[in-house]
Amino acid sequence: MLTANYVGNKTMSIIETAPEAPSAEQVQIKVAFTGLCGTDLHVLHGDMDRRVHQPAIIGHEMSGTIAALGSAVQGWDIGDPVTVMPLDWDGTCPACRAGHQHVCQNLNFIGIDSAGSLQQFWNVPASVLVRLPETLRLDHGALVEPVAVAVHDVRRSGLVRGEKVVVIGGGPIGVLIATTAREFGGEVVVVEVDAGRRSAVAGLGFDTIDPRSEDQVEWVNRWTADAGADVVFEVSGSAQAVLHATSLARVRGRLVVVAIHPTPREIDLQRLFWRELTIIGARVYERRDFETAIELLNSSAIPADALITDVVPLTQTAEAFARLESGQAMKILVDCQAGAR
Amino acid sequence: MLTANYVGNKTMSIIETAPEAPSAEQVQIKVAFTGLCGTDLHVLHGDMDRRVHQPAIIGHEMSGTIAALGSAVQGWDIGDPVTVMPLDWDGTCPACRAGHQHVCQNLNFIGIDSAGSLQQFWNVPASVLVRLPETLRLDHGALVEPVAVAVHDVRRSGLVRGEKVVVIGGGPIGVLIATTAREFGGEVVVVEVDAGRRSAVAGLGFDTIDPRSEDQVEWVNRWTADAGADVVFEVSGSAQAVLHATSLARVRGRLVVVAIHPTPREIDLQRLFWRELTIIGARVYERRDFETAIELLNSSAIPADALITDVVPLTQTAEAFARLESGQAMKILVDCQAGAR
Repeated sequence: MLTANYVGNKTMSIIETAPEAPSAEQVQIKVAFTGLCGTDLHVLHGDMDRRVHQPAIIGHEMSGTIAALGSAVQGWDIGDPVTVMPLDWDGTCPACRAGHQHVCQNLNFIGIDSAGSLQQFWNVPASVLVRLPETLRLDHGALVEPVAVAVHDVRRSGLVRGEKVVVIGGGPIGVLIATTAREFGGEVVVVEVDAGRRSAVAGLGFDTIDPRSEDQVEWVNRWTADAGADVVFEVSGSAQAVLHATSLARVRGRLVVVAIHPTPREIDLQRLFWRELTIIGARVYERRDFETAIELLNSSAIPADALITDVVPLTQTAEAFARLESGQAMKILVDCQAGAR
Repeated sequence: MLTANYVGNKTMSIIETAPEAPSAEQVQIKVAFTGLCGTDLHVLHGDMDRRVHQPAIIGHEMSGTIAALGSAVQGWDIGDPVTVMPLDWDGTCPACRAGHQHVCQNLNFIGIDSAGSLQQFWNVPASVLVRLPETLRLDHGALVEPVAVAVHDVRRSGLVRGEKVVVIGGGPIGVLIATTAREFGGEVVVVEVDAGRRSAVAGLGFDTIDPRSEDQVEWVNRWTADAGADVVFEVSGSAQAVLHATSLARVRGRLVVVAIHPTPREIDLQRLFWRELTIIGARVYERRDFETAIELLNSSAIPADALITDVVPLTQTAEAFARLESGQAMKILVDCQAGAR
């Protein structure tokens, strides 16, 4: 079978290998689609070399069907459509014992810390399987994981129906958060510097702000009758955006930091104090976020087709990463069976 | 009567003036004691000259008895012991309409934006009065306002019984937060660089950490079996403390920023993300915080005598500020009747 491997030096290589039989507690998944995401790009850039053992089969946004069952696996059948919640926790650390297994202090993130889904057949513990409805197309099913990220972010914000929401950053995750927040009853505006992305976001029915030509604070104050936004999601990763994000929020408003900020960022703590704001960290997802994500995709609340820029065969994974890097694609899926030998 | 006035140029002046009769909605308070605090020092330094109209009678931590009633005032009698919650909100701004009057977008903070209690007789709207129990000594009653700050900070943290708490900074507010957190059922350690303050804090029964000789993170990890603290209060105002505070908190832990940070500060957003932390802003207090503060003082849960370094007559207000500035005093009260003519 074919596998797509990160081999260091910013390089992806296709390696042919024989599938292994699943162990007693595992299932073998015939992978249908794997989505490429920003974290995969970080791996490819070498930013995560301390965690990633080369050659590394990466990929963790996926859909597929069960191809084989380990001897101890119960409750699953060959052919069942599935996705994977790629979190393997130890169950014994303080975070796990406190009920926050998804941020286990010794978390194995499958697809980074161990082999991922950019291959034709993938063995995973049965415990990480999530059932997909028969009515959900498998290409859409590969979006469950990133939608679950957005659902988790929105749930962490405490958003309730009727609240006004600013999403800073109109890339793939920003669009998913905006869409999910709207489904949760929020009124949403997206701040985005890139004209092409603003146009795509507007095409999904959202108001947009170009922060280079409009004063965001004035816009939000006008929109909210001088109150400020209930919730602000920082999805841009920009230091300037973080510094100004607090000025968009109302008294007791919430700022959720979604983007990865690898170095410390300046925060306006005077504003945090003055308006009694809350800044919230959010990471990955919990099982219920996956379940909500599946509902949102299965009911077409998430505009999956508008988000999937292209589908390419596994052999073109390297080229797909290059396109993703250029910012010209929202979501590229890899068809892990196309071109199979 | 005597009044203590900020007259600019880092100067306090005693000015003699005639008391005025209260207007219809006001009461006249015969001020017993006024505590001096860090905010008053900021006024004296000229940091708040845009808000403070000179000459300005400052002071907002106080106790007294009612000396005269305006014609429309009901429910109060001459001689009633009182303190003042010095917040006068407009009731119409978005924050007020949302139920957060204490952080009204057009707040009049009495004692900063209008005349305070460093005088023998003080007229205030009856609506800001808070009744003191007959059993509470009036010198202790002057601590209600700073204790209410601490109660508000602890309430904002969501602290529940049995949680582990780190207080960074062992000054007056740090000690009040530590004491209040302990009364709310927390186990508390105080981080403080100054040996004298550490010794005072230890004398109140708290564990202490000297961050210059001990590794705080190791200490907290040992204390919490590698979980991290449930709640961290940043009361030091130090940029370094803010940067490191996030490393003391457990997964889903809360960091309450109590100190005023006038310029933006670097925050470790990677840690915020990794541990799904929450950073919480807290400002002043609400009526229920005053009521809890009175209960805590009246039951001697707050070590009021240990906190009151000295009591001086109104005529020595300038000298008292100089002592406060030197860091050698926890709380100095001004006796607003001593030396009265």
